[in-house]
Amino acid sequence: MNVYRYEENPLITPADVKPYHPGFEVIGAFNAGIAKYKDEILMLLRVAERPVSPDPNVVLAPVYDPKAKKLELIELRKDDARYDFSDPRVIRDKTQSAGFAYLTSISYIRIARSKDGHRFTIDDGPFVYPSNEQETFGIEDPRVTQIGDTYYVYFSAVSPVGIGESMVSTTDFVSYNHHGMIFCPDNKDVMIFPEKVNGKYYALHRPTTKSIGMPEIWIAESDNLLYWGNHRHLAGLRPGKWDSARIGGGAVPFRTDKGWLELYHGATAEHRYCMGALLLDLNDPTKVIARSDKPILEPDAPYEKEGFFGDVVFSCGVAVEGDVVKMYYGVADTSMACAELSLQEILDSLTYN
Amino acid sequence: MNVYRYEENPLITPADVKPYHPGFEVIGAFNAGIAKYKDEILMLLRVAERPVSPDPNVVLAPVYDPKAKKLELIELRKDDARYDFSDPRVIRDKTQSAGFAYLTSISYIRIARSKDGHRFTIDDGPFVYPSNEQETFGIEDPRVTQIGDTYYVYFSAVSPVGIGESMVSTTDFVSYNHHGMIFCPDNKDVMIFPEKVNGKYYALHRPTTKSIGMPEIWIAESDNLLYWGNHRHLAGLRPGKWDSARIGGGAVPFRTDKGWLELYHGATAEHRYCMGALLLDLNDPTKVIARSDKPILEPDAPYEKEGFFGDVVFSCGVAVEGDVVKMYYGVADTSMACAELSLQEILDSLTYN
Repeated sequence: MNVYRYEENPLITPADVKPYHPGFEVIGAFNAGIAKYKDEILMLLRVAERPVSPDPNVVLAPVYDPKAKKLELIELRKDDARYDFSDPRVIRDKTQSAGFAYLTSISYIRIARSKDGHRFTIDDGPFVYPSNEQETFGIEDPRVTQIGDTYYVYFSAVSPVGIGESMVSTTDFVSYNHHGMIFCPDNKDVMIFPEKVNGKYYALHRPTTKSIGMPEIWIAESDNLLYWGNHRHLAGLRPGKWDSARIGGGAVPFRTDKGWLELYHGATAEHRYCMGALLLDLNDPTKVIARSDKPILEPDAPYEKEGFFGDVVFSCGVAVEGDVVKMYYGVADTSMACAELSLQEILDSLTYN
Repeated sequence: MNVYRYEENPLITPADVKPYHPGFEVIGAFNAGIAKYKDEILMLLRVAERPVSPDPNVVLAPVYDPKAKKLELIELRKDDARYDFSDPRVIRDKTQSAGFAYLTSISYIRIARSKDGHRFTIDDGPFVYPSNEQETFGIEDPRVTQIGDTYYVYFSAVSPVGIGESMVSTTDFVSYNHHGMIFCPDNKDVMIFPEKVNGKYYALHRPTTKSIGMPEIWIAESDNLLYWGNHRHLAGLRPGKWDSARIGGGAVPFRTDKGWLELYHGATAEHRYCMGALLLDLNDPTKVIARSDKPILEPDAPYEKEGFFGDVVFSCGVAVEGDVVKMYYGVADTSMACAELSLQEILDSLTYN
């Protein structure tokens, strides 16, 4: 697989982004959804900002208060035996067997705009910011599906009641309508197909289960993009392979002559995130035709291997032009990069059922 | 609270149910959905059957094979160090931190019919039996919502890919249409309201989350009963009370002058399951008006305290006649019972916001 990484990579780093919150530092500008709007490529960046604690013994956890409409800071002492601060992303409650109590940063969506797809200008403030009880810990990992002139932007909504997927829609990337939570917790990595197939909308999604089941890819259908059902399991983990511990949709699927191509992420138990491909039947996307035995992109460049959370490549969107797949992707939970791949080479690399 | 338990309780026990599978024993006939059909009360029983192992060192786990259309038995040796057999309901994989690997029994839906609501005649075979990849470990805890002449029967669908909620519909309780999975894993305890409210259908549901969040009651909306969205958190756990560890919808909500009355179950960390009530706004069921500080029914009778899994009362449906709420409920994950309560007394017992 020939992979052409842009010379400008990483295209955007936290240092390029001015903090929106006074007294905060930007620790991530990554996992951006991609849209073509007018003559520009837009990155809908997930920007993560962390409060700078004045006391080295105190960790500050940011929590949005939707009633007061402002961000509150929860003070936690590092010597508080109840909490585990070892993961840079989350603060765990040791009395709970799984999950987390707080995030160390708050994420929101901010737009970067480009004419050439290489050099981006970052907006001064957020495009979508937490606004309700389901988003008090932030909104993460947006994807964008264009249907007609409307762009549907959906993202993980994180709060103490769970992580679900919420959606807004926009026609101008300035204002938007909020459509609430379209997939209830525990769910993320939703990908809405850009057109109806046999009269129905489809979406990939990734439930995280506690009782039984693994973090795998499901597919659902809808007639209005707001309400979803007929959930079916689509693709599972593969022991011993690059996608053995966790998979989820990545880029929004796009139509090819051979089928719907979905570039998805997979991780091992060691949290090494790679990108691979699933090919789904054009007339029935609940059918998997082919899949990558090996990744089409894996962490290799220094900016992919080192960062806030290293060894991660994680695409949320592509721009396709003829045979060229411009895959934008978050690196090391820190920055944004782009690589070009050949569509034909991707299709040829798959293992067909 | 005056509670009149029927003298005939338990109304149905496993001994009353002839096994459907040769070589199996019925270990549960419980958690029945309730329907009024023609001049009868129907219990849609969850019947749980367990294979009788000829070898005391071997546990047999039943798994439905939808391709071969038959039930397979997985043999597990009791001395297999990988598995934990201590829970009578499930077989756990010790290498997994949570959840289960197999169930010890397989559940399906079987109908019991009665003219007087006290004495029931049990059908010879299943009404709804596992039929697809999402139901290979069985189907559990049905609820029934009547809308016009159609009865919607929905239940937990259990398989290695997760526990979600699937639905069938029937007009005669003989044949049915299968509508697939309406709420994806991890979810159960779905309750569909019996009429539209302000132009939308509503359902309570109970996600089980791994990342963050507790087993609490959510509400969703729909325009066709098949696709659901606009998920919102409705009611949470209450530390120190009877519903401190786990709650979920119980009986299908019904209209009263004061609001929609939902009789729900709550459990403590010690797995003591009681029934209480939530009152929701008639015109906006996403608003909680009142709630039970104390249970309206708690395990007390011997058949409620002792059984396959004791100290459990768990209602999936009621029949309401004027002021009389006939609450049918599963007891000790074993049998069915019924108690009558006064609607007015329930409403008077609530703590209003």
